[in-house]
Amino acid sequence: MSAPGYPPGIEITEVALRDGIQIEPVFIPTAEKIRLLDALIDAGVRRFEVTSFVSPRAVPQLKDAAEVLAGVRRHPGVVLGVLAPNRKGIERALAAGADEIAVFLSISESHNQKNLNRSVERSMEDIREAADIVRGTGVRLKGAIATAFGCPFEGEVSLDRMEQMASRFAEYGYDSLTLGDTTGMATPPLVRATVERLRSRLPGLKLNLHFHNTRGIGLVNVMEGLSLGITSYESSLGGIGGCPFAPGATGNICTEDTVHLMEQLGIETGIDLDQLTAVARDMERMLGRPLPGQVLRSGPRLRRYQLEEQAAALG
Amino acid sequence: MSAPGYPPGIEITEVALRDGIQIEPVFIPTAEKIRLLDALIDAGVRRFEVTSFVSPRAVPQLKDAAEVLAGVRRHPGVVLGVLAPNRKGIERALAAGADEIAVFLSISESHNQKNLNRSVERSMEDIREAADIVRGTGVRLKGAIATAFGCPFEGEVSLDRMEQMASRFAEYGYDSLTLGDTTGMATPPLVRATVERLRSRLPGLKLNLHFHNTRGIGLVNVMEGLSLGITSYESSLGGIGGCPFAPGATGNICTEDTVHLMEQLGIETGIDLDQLTAVARDMERMLGRPLPGQVLRSGPRLRRYQLEEQAAALG
Repeated sequence: MSAPGYPPGIEITEVALRDGIQIEPVFIPTAEKIRLLDALIDAGVRRFEVTSFVSPRAVPQLKDAAEVLAGVRRHPGVVLGVLAPNRKGIERALAAGADEIAVFLSISESHNQKNLNRSVERSMEDIREAADIVRGTGVRLKGAIATAFGCPFEGEVSLDRMEQMASRFAEYGYDSLTLGDTTGMATPPLVRATVERLRSRLPGLKLNLHFHNTRGIGLVNVMEGLSLGITSYESSLGGIGGCPFAPGATGNICTEDTVHLMEQLGIETGIDLDQLTAVARDMERMLGRPLPGQVLRSGPRLRRYQLEEQAAALG
Repeated sequence: MSAPGYPPGIEITEVALRDGIQIEPVFIPTAEKIRLLDALIDAGVRRFEVTSFVSPRAVPQLKDAAEVLAGVRRHPGVVLGVLAPNRKGIERALAAGADEIAVFLSISESHNQKNLNRSVERSMEDIREAADIVRGTGVRLKGAIATAFGCPFEGEVSLDRMEQMASRFAEYGYDSLTLGDTTGMATPPLVRATVERLRSRLPGLKLNLHFHNTRGIGLVNVMEGLSLGITSYESSLGGIGGCPFAPGATGNICTEDTVHLMEQLGIETGIDLDQLTAVARDMERMLGRPLPGQVLRSGPRLRRYQLEEQAAALG
C-alpha cells in the first residue's frame, strides 16, 4: 500500500533508447537496441519511447528507427512510442507501426530555433498538422514541450506562455502532454505552480513529467509530482542521456532508481527491479563506461552484505 | 520567503573533512585541509565536523586531527565540531580545543562490533562516560547513531530499539542527536516514522539528519525532513564520502546540491553558493577525480549559456 498522499501506482515511460542514447557517439547495433527493449519488456516496462524519426544526418544514432520498431517483440499492453519532429517523421513513424507518436517543440524561442530550426509559431503549425495526419489512424498522439521549466539560453519560462501553449495542444486534440525538463531546471515550487496552473485551466489534458537530474534533484521533482497526484513519468535506464551543455552532469532521471524509490513508497510500477537492474548492467557493459544510476551500484536497500565485505572502518 | 510547509532556514554541518575524506587513500596535507576549511568559512558555512579523533592506525587520513583544529581560523559563530569514538579521543578533542564533540555508536550490533570493536551495550557505557567527561567544560556534546535507517549486515532497524537508544542519549544529557544513514538506506516513510516517534517521546532532543545518496534519494530524504520541520542537516562538499560497501556509489549528500535546492525552495542556509562551488572545484582538483556533485558541473539553474555552446541537437 502506498504511503498517505501518494497515488497507488504510476506508469513509467522508458526513454533510454531515444533520449538516452541520442547523443551516444558510437552507433549501437540495431540488434542490441532490440535486445535491450525486449529485455525491458520482460522486466515489466509497458511504455517506451523506442526511437525517434528524425533526420539520420542530425541524429545518426537513431537512423535505424524503422528497423528497431519492426524488430521489437510486440506484447499485449506494451505501448511502443516514438518521437517525430515533423510531417516526414510522422509519416515514417506511421508506416513503421508506432503505437504512439510524440510531437514536440520547445517553449523557448531560441531553444526551438536551435533544436528545430524554426520559430515556435511555425512549430505550433506543425503540431496542428501532426494532429490532422494522425487523427483516425488509431495511433495515439502525445504532445511534448521541451525546456518547460526553464531554458538554458533564455532563463525562466512564463506560466502564461505555458498555459497558452498547452491550450493549443488541447485544442488540436492531443490526449496527453509531456512537460520536458530538458536541462534540469525544474524545482519543486515550479513543478507545483506549473501543474496546478495547467490542471485548473485544462482539466482534460493528461500531464506526463520528464525530469533530468542535471542538478541532483530529479527525484525530488518526482516526489513533488506524486504529491500533486501525477501518475506518468519518463525516465532512462541507467540514468543515461546527459545534457549537451553540462559535460559530466547526469541527464534523465534513472529508471532503476525511480522504481526503487517507488517500491519504498509502496507505489506500484509493474516493473521487476532485479530484472530491470540486470538490463541496466547489460547496457552499462555495452556502453563501456559507468552509468549515473545509483541502485545499479549499491543494490536495493535491503541487500545484505557479509561482515567480511567491509572494506574500511567508518570510525 | 520559503515555500509553504517548509522552515524559513536550516543549518548545514559540513562533514567533507571528516566523513568525506576518511577513506581517501592518499594523505591530504594538513595545510590543504586547513585551506579548504577556511574557504568554507568564508563561503558562509557555520558548522563543521572538521576531523575525527580516532586511532591514527585505523584512519591514517585523520592522524593530523589536532593540527587541523589548531590551524583553522576561528570565527565568531562558527562551530568547529569533531568526532570522537572513546575516552581517549574525547580527551584529545578537548585538549585540541574543539567547540563540539560528536560521540557515536551504531544501532546495529554487528555494525558496531565491526566499526567500534565492542558491543552496543558497551558503547552505550562509553556514551555515558563521554557525557561525564565533557560536562562542565563548555564544549557542546552531540550524539550520533550510525546505521539509523538500516544496517548493511542486519537489515531493518527496529523503531523500539531506536527509541530506547535515543532515550539514553537524552538521559545522559546530550543536547542533540544525529541520525546517520551510514549506507543510504533511509526512505521518506522511514524518515517520517523515525522522526515522529522520537519527537513524540523525546520532545527536548534536537534531531540532526545525516543522509547518504547511495541509492539516489539523499535529497528526497532531506525534503521529507523539511516537511517534518527538521532544520539541521549534515552534508559533504562535492558529495564526497562514498560507501565502503558499494564501490562507485556516492556517499554523503552533496553540500552544493543541497544549498542549491534550498535556494530554490527559498530556505536560508547563510551559504554563498558561488563561493561554495568554487571551493568544491578546488577540492576536486586536489583529489584529482570528478566528484559526484551535480551543481559543480551544471552550474546553478539560471546559468545562461550562449547559443553557440550547444554541442548537439536534441531533436
